Amino acid sequence: MTSQFEPTDPNYRSRVTQSFAEQAIMQTIGASLLEVAPGHVEIGLPFALRLTQQDEFLHSGVSSTIMDSACGYAAFSLMPAGARVLTIEFKINLLAPAAGDRFRAIGKVRKPGRSVFVAEGELFAERDGGSKLVATMVATLMAVTANG
Amino acid sequence: MTSQFEPTDPNYRSRVTQSFAEQAIMQTIGASLLEVAPGHVEIGLPFALRLTQQDEFLHSGVSSTIMDSACGYAAFSLMPAGARVLTIEFKINLLAPAAGDRFRAIGKVRKPGRSVFVAEGELFAERDGGSKLVATMVATLMAVTANG
Amino acid sequence: MTSQFEPTDPNYRSRVTQSFAEQAIMQTIGASLLEVAPGHVEIGLPFALRLTQQDEFLHSGVSSTIMDSACGYAAFSLMPAGARVLTIEFKINLLAPAAGDRFRAIGKVRKPGRSVFVAEGELFAERDGGSKLVATMVATLMAVTANG
Amino acid sequence: MTSQFEPTDPNYRSRVTQSFAEQAIMQTIGASLLEVAPGHVEIGLPFALRLTQQDEFLHSGVSSTIMDSACGYAAFSLMPAGARVLTIEFKINLLAPAAGDRFRAIGKVRKPGRSVFVAEGELFAERDGGSKLVATMVATLMAVTANG
Repeated sequence: MTSQFEPTDPNYRSRVTQSFAEQAIMQTIGASLLEVAPGHVEIGLPFALRLTQQDEFLHSGVSSTIMDSACGYAAFSLMPAGARVLTIEFKINLLAPAAGDRFRAIGKVRKPGRSVFVAEGELFAERDGGSKLVATMVATLMAVTANG
Repeated sequence: MTSQFEPTDPNYRSRVTQSFAEQAIMQTIGASLLEVAPGHVEIGLPFALRLTQQDEFLHSGVSSTIMDSACGYAAFSLMPAGARVLTIEFKINLLAPAAGDRFRAIGKVRKPGRSVFVAEGELFAERDGGSKLVATMVATLMAVTANG
Repeated sequence: MTSQFEPTDPNYRSRVTQSFAEQAIMQTIGASLLEVAPGHVEIGLPFALRLTQQDEFLHSGVSSTIMDSACGYAAFSLMPAGARVLTIEFKINLLAPAAGDRFRAIGKVRKPGRSVFVAEGELFAERDGGSKLVATMVATLMAVTANG
Repeated sequence: MTSQFEPTDPNYRSRVTQSFAEQAIMQTIGASLLEVAPGHVEIGLPFALRLTQQDEFLHSGVSSTIMDSACGYAAFSLMPAGARVLTIEFKINLLAPAAGDRFRAIGKVRKPGRSVFVAEGELFAERDGGSKLVATMVATLMAVTANG
């Protein structure tokens, strides 16, 4: 996977991997880290009935969970060592019912900054070899460093 | 609880209660329905480590889960019998770390419509008798009826 | 007008008034500053055909112009002397056609911060002594200071 | 310009052109229609001091004006003859100061629907042959037809 971004911390991958492992919710819902590149992170999630809303589609909050983390870690991958990442806000558009066997959340940095990052997310539902875009996200993230 | 809205379906409460019971994710995370009034729904969630992000705060996706359902059911409570509710999009602003013993998501309809509803959500973190606003949401919902 | 916020700069009002006077777009569209209180700013705009979209309602971009400035100055009023205010992002929900003789945009800080502020905006259309809510906004603003 | 969308109305271009001509605000700010393709519309705007905020950058409301119309007409181009287009909501992220000699707003449909369309907008500031992305938008539009 190629990337248009240069990471400021060469150990960005291990920082992302370790922080992801510390997000207990990911284990609770069964999500895993699929890809980590500078400014680009993908998270996978198998369908499970216990994650659904009333029509047995993935609940939009679960979609948000993996999309927000994908966006957040995409931004985090470009931050300096020692920085923490904070989601300020995000917006999600639900384009189609989240129906599938597996889901893939892709987060990409659209605009890196000194403190504020903007990332975009996509959620794909996969089934029978096909893949369908079911949601999009725009997230604003902040790098929090020791000296402000 | 008083409300500025008249429900079109007198059985709104049982419709909301039943649909909430069908959202498997609510049981998975431990959420429960606290209040149902016309255009106003509250959902409670005890803190649990398995719902957290890397700093042991509630993950924003979990916050989104209960806030989106609170907003969605607030809108659903005003819809006619037989309608389904669909979230078109929402935006969440994370104002403070979601740290607390319990969380309360409040969803209120801001503008009902024939097909499009706008609702606003608030998330309060509760601890030691105190309550703190930690997130706000704006959600756009749609009523889907048999004849379009 | 009472306010729940204490301004950090006692000269907040003159700072807001002066900056508003420097927004050339306000004169271009005919907007004026109606109220300035700590964390609360109101902007007025008379209807004019030259500000409309194809149905002769106020164009949503014009609504955004006065709502964003109301939110931005509400935040600016709480910032320290010497800070500049920057809009990071905003979301607007259009609840009803912006039809009226006059419009009033109200911006209120929902959450002040050291660098990030969240403000909420409302747009009222006024006609024949009546007032109708036609749009809502959520805006994220940033205080930019010399030392970062 | 190629497009991934098939227009349902072969006269989409004249419908868009005529509606744009009826948006008085476009003439007021000096905007013009640059491109119309199925699901894709571009609007141009020369810089003018009378459109600026306090730092002499384009006011975010003016950016919103041309981005919202670009998104709205991108959606409108795919709607059936006789439909009207309504913006339900939009979100704008301001990535950099809107400084340039000319601006180009690009609106693209991301997801067409029977009644709800999602479009994405980009705003480029152009100067000295260069072009810089300064803002992004996500907009939700609705097709309003006579029979609901």
